[in-house]
Amino acid sequence: MSHFRVVATSGHARAGTLTTRHGEVDTPAFMPVATQASVKALSPAEVAGTGARLVIMNTYHLWLRPGPEIVHAHGGLHSFARWPHAIATDSGGFQAYSIAQRFRETPDGFELSSHLDGSRRLLTPEESLRVQVLLGTDIALQLDVCPPAGAPRRDVERALERTTAWAKRSLAARPDGQVLYGIVQGGTDVELRLRHAAELAALPLDGLALGGFSVGEAPARMHETLAAVVPNVDAARPRYLMGVGTPSDLVRAICCGVDLFDCVMPTRNARNGQAFVRGGRLVIKNARYKDDPSPIEPGCGCPACAGGFGRAYLRHLFQAGEILAHRLLTLHNLHHYQELVREGRAAIVAGEVEGWARSRLGDERGPAPLDA
Amino acid sequence: MSHFRVVATSGHARAGTLTTRHGEVDTPAFMPVATQASVKALSPAEVAGTGARLVIMNTYHLWLRPGPEIVHAHGGLHSFARWPHAIATDSGGFQAYSIAQRFRETPDGFELSSHLDGSRRLLTPEESLRVQVLLGTDIALQLDVCPPAGAPRRDVERALERTTAWAKRSLAARPDGQVLYGIVQGGTDVELRLRHAAELAALPLDGLALGGFSVGEAPARMHETLAAVVPNVDAARPRYLMGVGTPSDLVRAICCGVDLFDCVMPTRNARNGQAFVRGGRLVIKNARYKDDPSPIEPGCGCPACAGGFGRAYLRHLFQAGEILAHRLLTLHNLHHYQELVREGRAAIVAGEVEGWARSRLGDERGPAPLDA
Repeated sequence: MSHFRVVATSGHARAGTLTTRHGEVDTPAFMPVATQASVKALSPAEVAGTGARLVIMNTYHLWLRPGPEIVHAHGGLHSFARWPHAIATDSGGFQAYSIAQRFRETPDGFELSSHLDGSRRLLTPEESLRVQVLLGTDIALQLDVCPPAGAPRRDVERALERTTAWAKRSLAARPDGQVLYGIVQGGTDVELRLRHAAELAALPLDGLALGGFSVGEAPARMHETLAAVVPNVDAARPRYLMGVGTPSDLVRAICCGVDLFDCVMPTRNARNGQAFVRGGRLVIKNARYKDDPSPIEPGCGCPACAGGFGRAYLRHLFQAGEILAHRLLTLHNLHHYQELVREGRAAIVAGEVEGWARSRLGDERGPAPLDA
Repeated sequence: MSHFRVVATSGHARAGTLTTRHGEVDTPAFMPVATQASVKALSPAEVAGTGARLVIMNTYHLWLRPGPEIVHAHGGLHSFARWPHAIATDSGGFQAYSIAQRFRETPDGFELSSHLDGSRRLLTPEESLRVQVLLGTDIALQLDVCPPAGAPRRDVERALERTTAWAKRSLAARPDGQVLYGIVQGGTDVELRLRHAAELAALPLDGLALGGFSVGEAPARMHETLAAVVPNVDAARPRYLMGVGTPSDLVRAICCGVDLFDCVMPTRNARNGQAFVRGGRLVIKNARYKDDPSPIEPGCGCPACAGGFGRAYLRHLFQAGEILAHRLLTLHNLHHYQELVREGRAAIVAGEVEGWARSRLGDERGPAPLDA
């Protein structure tokens, strides 16, 4: 059974279906981030209630705590974290680089010290895959090398070479039936991106992720690069844009043919008091909301808006440091992101992705509330 | 219509019904604490799901932020905080004393500076009642003077005198139909408690609260004092033991004839990783739970236990600082407290409160898990 099929296209954009051991996932899809096996502030039922059928968890964090053996003994992440739908796991490479201490890259993998207890660890392509398999992931990601924005070309080329080698080692270590995605690097260099995408497409990977975006480059550079690269990435496999982005980033990337996204923005910004609404963002602590009984976004069907929680109450909860503020804003933001990909899919199926994108991007210059 | 009626007694214990503008409340009742108009970590629907039909909010906090005028403009606390059931509010006196800065007691009331912005404020019996009325409370509490544990007798006597005077001023300021409780002080001195209870019972107050317990005295002293005092407090009015306590404190106080309780213990301890179970308390971070797939309390019907969340996952969430740990433990603990008062009421109605109390108190010396 194929992991992915395209059911409709509109321009470069595609509507598709991912088939996993834990159900089908409509694409374009946005994966809420459940770093430590919990989408921050929400229950699994609430996450499913936003429409999400695929979340992404973090191999580095779960490797260190509680440890993959404990999760495995509990029947894997689905059972451990009470999430019955599909789960992807990243490789842990990005966290090894950004969070761990005494990090060193070698041809074999990453040497590092745990940020929790300082213990010395070795994260190889094989170890990352072993951990992901123990966790019971539906979609594993290969360990890759992600050069920082603005890295010299020879560093980027070395990163591509090593990432391809690690993709092969990951494939060699892959158990039967394990879905595994490769990761295309190359920064904002279109030629390198295309070369690397072709290299990985020659391997029997189930999906092709685009790593190394949103790492400090200008958003316009990312959009240009995606427009030149994505339509040329093997169309038979799902294309996953890692760690991106704002609602308008998603709209633009969907138009280029991206199928899958993840980003901490809707959940993290919620905990910082920022709500995504059509037309911009609402900063709940602003004094203008202290008397405002209207919901975050009139007409929105999320539990915060449809539940009658007003901006003045949300502002009060946020100012008072109440957990309920984080919960309600997170519910709203994830609902906003899921609604965006649902709308995008419907527009693709209807063959009208361009009109939809114009309308969604036009929103961004639209009327208030636009606090940020 | 009477605010309270007793429907059954067993020994000194009573089962009753409070009638409020927002529904009836079975007693004995435990009020979850929603200090800043939110039961910490829970949604209103979740609080109602534990069986609670009455919560207590805090006049001092809501007076300073968001301010009673804003809450009033939103239709009162029920509408503002989306809680359709009954609400009690304390007077704010305890917080004025314990949280505010530059506190000074005068015959007129409490002078203080806001702990939020240092603004100078005067909390009089009339101002406290005015704020509670603007908040739309179903049950207001008079402003009282609460001497610390071990205060000299003449200080306690002065506190009683002033509290009675302030009860009279509160009654004079009370709008028609506003339910108002007086507060009996007197520390652990039975004679002073009885004298003050009789003084307040001579006034047209709707309920008699017992303040100044759990302020540092030994638990056994509190239990002795309650046993001598409570059965002699006017039986026609609800008796409310403020700020108490552990499950076994509740069992003992119910046996003395207390009808109403509030305490931060189930919610605060949850956020510190402590779960109340029959037989004791479970400290979720303990290493013994790292591999344990069982729910907090097998057989418990709360959303955490019935939802299949295991101790190992809860421990992981707690260690990782995930909000979901606080939510699930809070749900469990409030469920435990509500189950206790439901059971107590059924035992009173059945005329078997003593057997129930023996069985519940026996639990406390019972089998593991008993981590604390």
